[in-house]
Amino acid sequence: MIETHSDLYEAYVLTANHQVDKLIAQARKFLPEAVIIADESHYPHLQEALSDLPIKVYAGAEALCQVVTEEPVDMVLTALVGFSGLQPTISAIKAKKPIALANKETLVVAGELITALANEYMVPILPVDSEHSAIFQCLEPGNRIEKILLTASGGPFRTFTKEQLQSVTKEQALKHPNWSMGAKITIDSASMMNKGFEVMEARWLFGVKPSQIEVLVHPQSIIHSAVQFEDGAIKAQLGMPDMRIPIQYAFSFPQRLHSDFPRIDFDLCTQLTFEHPDTEKFRNLALAYEAINRGGNMPCILNAANEVVNAAFLHDKVSFLALSDIIEQTMQQATFIAKPTFEDYLATDREARERARLLIEN
Amino acid sequence: MIETHSDLYEAYVLTANHQVDKLIAQARKFLPEAVIIADESHYPHLQEALSDLPIKVYAGAEALCQVVTEEPVDMVLTALVGFSGLQPTISAIKAKKPIALANKETLVVAGELITALANEYMVPILPVDSEHSAIFQCLEPGNRIEKILLTASGGPFRTFTKEQLQSVTKEQALKHPNWSMGAKITIDSASMMNKGFEVMEARWLFGVKPSQIEVLVHPQSIIHSAVQFEDGAIKAQLGMPDMRIPIQYAFSFPQRLHSDFPRIDFDLCTQLTFEHPDTEKFRNLALAYEAINRGGNMPCILNAANEVVNAAFLHDKVSFLALSDIIEQTMQQATFIAKPTFEDYLATDREARERARLLIEN
Repeated sequence: MIETHSDLYEAYVLTANHQVDKLIAQARKFLPEAVIIADESHYPHLQEALSDLPIKVYAGAEALCQVVTEEPVDMVLTALVGFSGLQPTISAIKAKKPIALANKETLVVAGELITALANEYMVPILPVDSEHSAIFQCLEPGNRIEKILLTASGGPFRTFTKEQLQSVTKEQALKHPNWSMGAKITIDSASMMNKGFEVMEARWLFGVKPSQIEVLVHPQSIIHSAVQFEDGAIKAQLGMPDMRIPIQYAFSFPQRLHSDFPRIDFDLCTQLTFEHPDTEKFRNLALAYEAINRGGNMPCILNAANEVVNAAFLHDKVSFLALSDIIEQTMQQATFIAKPTFEDYLATDREARERARLLIEN
Repeated sequence: MIETHSDLYEAYVLTANHQVDKLIAQARKFLPEAVIIADESHYPHLQEALSDLPIKVYAGAEALCQVVTEEPVDMVLTALVGFSGLQPTISAIKAKKPIALANKETLVVAGELITALANEYMVPILPVDSEHSAIFQCLEPGNRIEKILLTASGGPFRTFTKEQLQSVTKEQALKHPNWSMGAKITIDSASMMNKGFEVMEARWLFGVKPSQIEVLVHPQSIIHSAVQFEDGAIKAQLGMPDMRIPIQYAFSFPQRLHSDFPRIDFDLCTQLTFEHPDTEKFRNLALAYEAINRGGNMPCILNAANEVVNAAFLHDKVSFLALSDIIEQTMQQATFIAKPTFEDYLATDREARERARLLIEN
């Protein structure tokens, strides 16, 4: 987008967690004011590689929180993975920077706190997730949402039996049928935890009750989600599975910018199918509804446990079906707080991670 | 709608062509100021039947043109059949009454004239056709339409071979798979002339080129149509095939009113399919594109010929496949006028009807 619309956009800061080589390449291309590598061990290499350019080089989480507040920043795209996105997002909101939110865990963990803060500072949170962007694109000022139809591809194991799920490997789980994404979210998609997170994200972004959000499995990933209004009309957003559309829309809203992204070819796209998710097989989705209905810090517990088991699965330390078991047990064991403060979230995150780790080891 | 939202709407005038008993029943229910029966032969019966009520009773086309201009009228729903809708629509626009347009032939015949007039008098034309309402619901202020995807059920003969089409009867043609409509439009749907008309209607309502309108056969009639924007995103409106949603929306726009109309049940709606229309089999659609690309009075010629052959088919006077032959020959024979005036349209309509009638007789 910055490439094709360089008259409209420029990168002020570019960040990465540990993918330092990609960060270097992008920095040389877009020449931002500054770059930040969250993982401080890569700092020397990064500084060395960009020493011929007038680019400031920072490292660490605090630099992230600092730099998003700087005056020339018009908008912050939060694409950190997991709980780590929470603090920089809060910093950006307090600095009145509109948020393009790709880090859904921020709303999963602390949706009530974040949306209250965004209201207080009158900062818009624009969705980047393709489903939430679709919903956002369908909204109409003044017309109430009756129901959100949140579509889900169903992941690589949609047609598997529970018996088959018992022995699936991370290699299988990492093969998403429609989207090419990072490892953590790909596993979350395979286990449908990602869809549970998206239910929570939708709940906070669009101010609806969990019961107003219906997950609909749609394996082709062409309808990115839909909104049903009070007159019975449904509006949906369709497109190829291509993250560039929602990212661009978050920045250009309410305008749309011309793009050369591939269009749907209805010679190839001849059939769209729908089915209800099987929450017996994909228990994470049921656990997510349970957590959001319970409220308080329960979604934070769910998220922390999931981050731990997700990483453990990627290291072959737990089986696919055990993911839900450990999350469920963590939800039962961790201290429930009905009205958590920001500090409570930090403590909950630590406690739940610890409990999940112990459950995995035993 | 008037029933469920009687606080918002009341009928000022109710009209019918010849269905006098339905008109009497509705008049007794909604107690309008006036009723009009277009077919004057029913006038005595209508007057007699409503003599106990303080309802003015009129008959004939002139009364239609007169009454739409009256001061208490806030909006005019034009649902006349065929060319006859043209003059009352012009009268309503000149009286600055917003139009809820169900009579698509008005735009087919004289789209350029009508849209110019509506612009001049700053009168909105709100679509009532389910497809055009869907498109209208998907529009965004300031964002250009790249392409319109105009969906079509394909009608009762979608899967027929050309050989099978040779012998289809009016009884078969009158059985539309998804929509319950009047006889004329049901035949137009079976022959896909209706979809050709809708291409023209979309062209004028939304100011796009014919080449920006793609007809997509979608037998389930759940996606009522869609709009592709310049960024590649498509927005679609979905719903049960139920005319009450678009009619209500034309009146309530930009608000949506709560309704109890049936919602889509995705337990039943598990598959949506798409295919390209076969214009070898359904030549009317190709003729419609030809007429609109030619411009001038050609769509008026097409429409007049179609009204004649449609009626002839309903009287078993022509075969189904002959419909396109006669329309095509009429288009070749009738006098072409590149920049027709309103009077030219009237003359073209008369000439084309006469030519079509002669072609049927010979």
